[in-house]
Amino acid sequence: MTDYQAILDEIAEKMRPNFGKGSVANYIPALGSVSPDKFGMTVQTVDGGSFSVGDAAEPFSIQSLSKLFVLQIAMSDFGDEVWSRVGKEPSGDRFNSLMKLELENGVPRNPFINVGALVTVDMLMSGEGDARQRIRDYLRTLALNDSIDANTVVMNSEIAHSDVNRAMAHLMRAHGSIECDVEELIATYCYQCSLEMSCIDLSKAALPLAVGGYSKLHGDTILSAQACKRINAVMVTCGMYDGVGSFAYRVGLPAKSGVGGGIVAVVPGKLAVAVWSPELDTSGNSYVGTVALELFTSMTKTGIF
Amino acid sequence: MTDYQAILDEIAEKMRPNFGKGSVANYIPALGSVSPDKFGMTVQTVDGGSFSVGDAAEPFSIQSLSKLFVLQIAMSDFGDEVWSRVGKEPSGDRFNSLMKLELENGVPRNPFINVGALVTVDMLMSGEGDARQRIRDYLRTLALNDSIDANTVVMNSEIAHSDVNRAMAHLMRAHGSIECDVEELIATYCYQCSLEMSCIDLSKAALPLAVGGYSKLHGDTILSAQACKRINAVMVTCGMYDGVGSFAYRVGLPAKSGVGGGIVAVVPGKLAVAVWSPELDTSGNSYVGTVALELFTSMTKTGIF
Amino acid sequence: MTDYQAILDEIAEKMRPNFGKGSVANYIPALGSVSPDKFGMTVQTVDGGSFSVGDAAEPFSIQSLSKLFVLQIAMSDFGDEVWSRVGKEPSGDRFNSLMKLELENGVPRNPFINVGALVTVDMLMSGEGDARQRIRDYLRTLALNDSIDANTVVMNSEIAHSDVNRAMAHLMRAHGSIECDVEELIATYCYQCSLEMSCIDLSKAALPLAVGGYSKLHGDTILSAQACKRINAVMVTCGMYDGVGSFAYRVGLPAKSGVGGGIVAVVPGKLAVAVWSPELDTSGNSYVGTVALELFTSMTKTGIF
Amino acid sequence: MTDYQAILDEIAEKMRPNFGKGSVANYIPALGSVSPDKFGMTVQTVDGGSFSVGDAAEPFSIQSLSKLFVLQIAMSDFGDEVWSRVGKEPSGDRFNSLMKLELENGVPRNPFINVGALVTVDMLMSGEGDARQRIRDYLRTLALNDSIDANTVVMNSEIAHSDVNRAMAHLMRAHGSIECDVEELIATYCYQCSLEMSCIDLSKAALPLAVGGYSKLHGDTILSAQACKRINAVMVTCGMYDGVGSFAYRVGLPAKSGVGGGIVAVVPGKLAVAVWSPELDTSGNSYVGTVALELFTSMTKTGIF
Repeated sequence: MTDYQAILDEIAEKMRPNFGKGSVANYIPALGSVSPDKFGMTVQTVDGGSFSVGDAAEPFSIQSLSKLFVLQIAMSDFGDEVWSRVGKEPSGDRFNSLMKLELENGVPRNPFINVGALVTVDMLMSGEGDARQRIRDYLRTLALNDSIDANTVVMNSEIAHSDVNRAMAHLMRAHGSIECDVEELIATYCYQCSLEMSCIDLSKAALPLAVGGYSKLHGDTILSAQACKRINAVMVTCGMYDGVGSFAYRVGLPAKSGVGGGIVAVVPGKLAVAVWSPELDTSGNSYVGTVALELFTSMTKTGIF
Repeated sequence: MTDYQAILDEIAEKMRPNFGKGSVANYIPALGSVSPDKFGMTVQTVDGGSFSVGDAAEPFSIQSLSKLFVLQIAMSDFGDEVWSRVGKEPSGDRFNSLMKLELENGVPRNPFINVGALVTVDMLMSGEGDARQRIRDYLRTLALNDSIDANTVVMNSEIAHSDVNRAMAHLMRAHGSIECDVEELIATYCYQCSLEMSCIDLSKAALPLAVGGYSKLHGDTILSAQACKRINAVMVTCGMYDGVGSFAYRVGLPAKSGVGGGIVAVVPGKLAVAVWSPELDTSGNSYVGTVALELFTSMTKTGIF
Repeated sequence: MTDYQAILDEIAEKMRPNFGKGSVANYIPALGSVSPDKFGMTVQTVDGGSFSVGDAAEPFSIQSLSKLFVLQIAMSDFGDEVWSRVGKEPSGDRFNSLMKLELENGVPRNPFINVGALVTVDMLMSGEGDARQRIRDYLRTLALNDSIDANTVVMNSEIAHSDVNRAMAHLMRAHGSIECDVEELIATYCYQCSLEMSCIDLSKAALPLAVGGYSKLHGDTILSAQACKRINAVMVTCGMYDGVGSFAYRVGLPAKSGVGGGIVAVVPGKLAVAVWSPELDTSGNSYVGTVALELFTSMTKTGIF
Repeated sequence: MTDYQAILDEIAEKMRPNFGKGSVANYIPALGSVSPDKFGMTVQTVDGGSFSVGDAAEPFSIQSLSKLFVLQIAMSDFGDEVWSRVGKEPSGDRFNSLMKLELENGVPRNPFINVGALVTVDMLMSGEGDARQRIRDYLRTLALNDSIDANTVVMNSEIAHSDVNRAMAHLMRAHGSIECDVEELIATYCYQCSLEMSCIDLSKAALPLAVGGYSKLHGDTILSAQACKRINAVMVTCGMYDGVGSFAYRVGLPAKSGVGGGIVAVVPGKLAVAVWSPELDTSGNSYVGTVALELFTSMTKTGIF
């Protein structure tokens, strides 16, 4: 039987020489002030085991990791209709590029680039209930943690620095891809990005994706088996900004990253894993987090390929 | 134990209503003359079983499937140096687009778009021996079939219709990405594309990718375990033209397609599968072949996600 | 001596077969409701002659013609500093494209595409006084007509359909190219576009550009001689959307057009001419207006080339 | 009466501080070896006067200036049919960009970017007679100088460094925009670029464009009056690479430049002027040549605006 605790301890030890090779996201001051040498990692197995190392209990800004969970809610609400409003192909461009959008009539390539995430939020906002509360409550339920909440300093700072996102939203609105008010959309999107969770929280929240949707941990069917497979597929082809190919090559797991330095990944049938380290590589993914996951799949001989 | 023969028989039966929904590639007459309702499929298991249905024994033009095997030879020759000359990220554009190439200094995004394949051929041509013979012999060895050869009518027709490929090669030569003579490069590339193999051949040739490189069928280590995992990763993110996301979502296997209507896919640890049906969808992948593989992973409950 | 009245009469006569070949702008209802067979034309000579035909006295929506006059105000206020915030090269793309803007760090190619016009308005808004009032008063002075005003129905309709302009403004704001509040900017921009002037008004307003800035008609130096030459140059290379080359080839005059169907042009040293006909060609310029000007330069043997 | 000799002498004097601010084209060694501080300028008036200063009698590589004359031959041969194969709009991109070509089905934007020039050469090559000889003889006739010839060292060096041009030609061939053999096309194009002429030669060759096609100097009608006007129009909107707007703003004359450092310009009705100085600005136009022409139009109070 795999000794995950020993593996995590060894990984944490080996990460030390890797600090200082990336840069902390600093497009808003609130993110830039995080200590760059943070490192936490949690493995949550399908049979209930939870193994952590380092700063795994410390909440951090989930940022784009939220896109993974908002997609789940949108798929629950709208099923395959989601894919008539957003594609599932890699964009080949930076996460915040407007070019493809202009060439492709305002339909975003996938739900994990900003333009696509804005569409999934727009879908939630067209439904009943407060979208912000639904997102927060969904994460609280998945993470079994009722203290999860947004960091309003981060949220307000994001809202104040969202001109590129506003440009995207208005361009999509011109194409009929966005229905709700742009400022309310940006506010909700910045809310979801500013939610704070720990590696422990995130590993639990991602577990359903590893077990075909029914999780003993939650005692409930969170997602259909088919939805799980499909979300995992979208993570592999679109989950790591414009570094998906490199990540698949090195790590080989369905994963989603955020500029807060978090990455969640799943080993189908076995476990979910979350890692956090704030320094980013040039694609916007956690530098140390990627190295740690590469070592993890190598040591555990997991990986989907 | 899975009754693959029964599964293939059922799939073949269910494919009938799907003919006529795609279009046979016709950019060269020799390809356009293939009967559109051909359908063949072969499963080659890791423990030696081989199961076929329909036109599985009929050789067809492998076209871009050759890119998968030329990449393997280049990786054997040059190891990770391959990735200094070609990327491993999806391009987000059509397989024959020159745009990204111009913006990115002549370095192709990945080895499975035409520009990237030209670079891997260029690498082979810089080595010892005749590149064409090496490619043919590699495929003969992997398929355990010494009659595999190029169709010279197709080859000459491709050479005569290769202006876009020549444009790409010259643009890369201007950036120093291509070293050999462009006409010789085009001739070699058209040779590899015009090789003909059957589903039976291709399923054997792809088997090493399913078993970490060592194949009992071949009695030899064809590739390193790491190379296998990595090639599978590149297949998932870049193997199906600009339909990778949709294919991962529907089928969920590492795969490579060709405009001749062939697709090879692997279920790691279990089997390789090849399917052939000439009608293509708008992304350039076999329409019926994709439906057949979707049904196959659904019936066998395989898939990497 | 040229008999301008006879020439205009003949042109008006010859325009009849040209109606129905273009389409009236209909992105907002208020514009689409204009009668498509309107035609007016006025020649204003440097020595005070004014010759008109058809609907020359009827006010219409000046739309992008306003960009010509806002540029003049910005050049008066800021001199050559204008050109540090906006280029003077043709864009090669549609008037409302965002692509170049993204590739070129938010600096618009020229002041006559929408993105560039937004920058010149932004400059006016950073100065003293109400920008809207300044623009209106500048046009009233130039046209010697105190009844010039905005059409608030058109203005409000434009504001409600300005999502692409908002996208541009936010993208430029993200790059630091826009300083003021985006909604206020859009409101001012839509105000200037919704101003209504007749051919008679516009021919007077454009006259200073034909006479090196000092106009006897106005009894004042409106612009410096150098500013006139330079604005004329920018009109030739950037004034007719993506039809500048074709217009220079056919007509050969510095000119600016608007989607309301108006075109103003100058024959340096001689006259200013304004023409109005609402049907547009595929580049967004008045179809009949262009034919009329082509005939005018041919009959009067004018043209700068 | 204007004392052109005195003006040229003063300009030559004032150019000194401007050397060293640009860079000599060095994409082929033969061009890079030219002395950077060369400066020559010739004014050829419509009434037969010829005024020169500096290195005006020294032949230099005309490079893209040849495009102006090959366009004239093509227009003589094919009339307006030229414009069905090449546009007349500015491209907004670098002279050697392939992007627009890909988006616009292989039809080049105008005859003065490389792709467009290749189309006009292709037209000449489809006609009778040796295209190279026709081009050379046309220039000999216009310049009244039978010693004009190609520099074969430059020509061969260009042929050896023409991979981007070959890429363009093959891409256009794939779209049906080019009919002849690509290598022959490249050879002819490199021949025309490697022709050598002096400022004196070029000022005579450009004179017909200043006088509506009939030139007393040549005692013949070289071009129709309409063709002259139209070529001048294309020069203003497309003649100076991606610096047309800036050149029109500063100099205000129809002009064409070449990377050999030459610029020819015309003052309609008055004169043709040629200037040569090898250092180029970032748009690829002669740095000192542009400053000299700016001073020339300022001192002579000419300029079309």
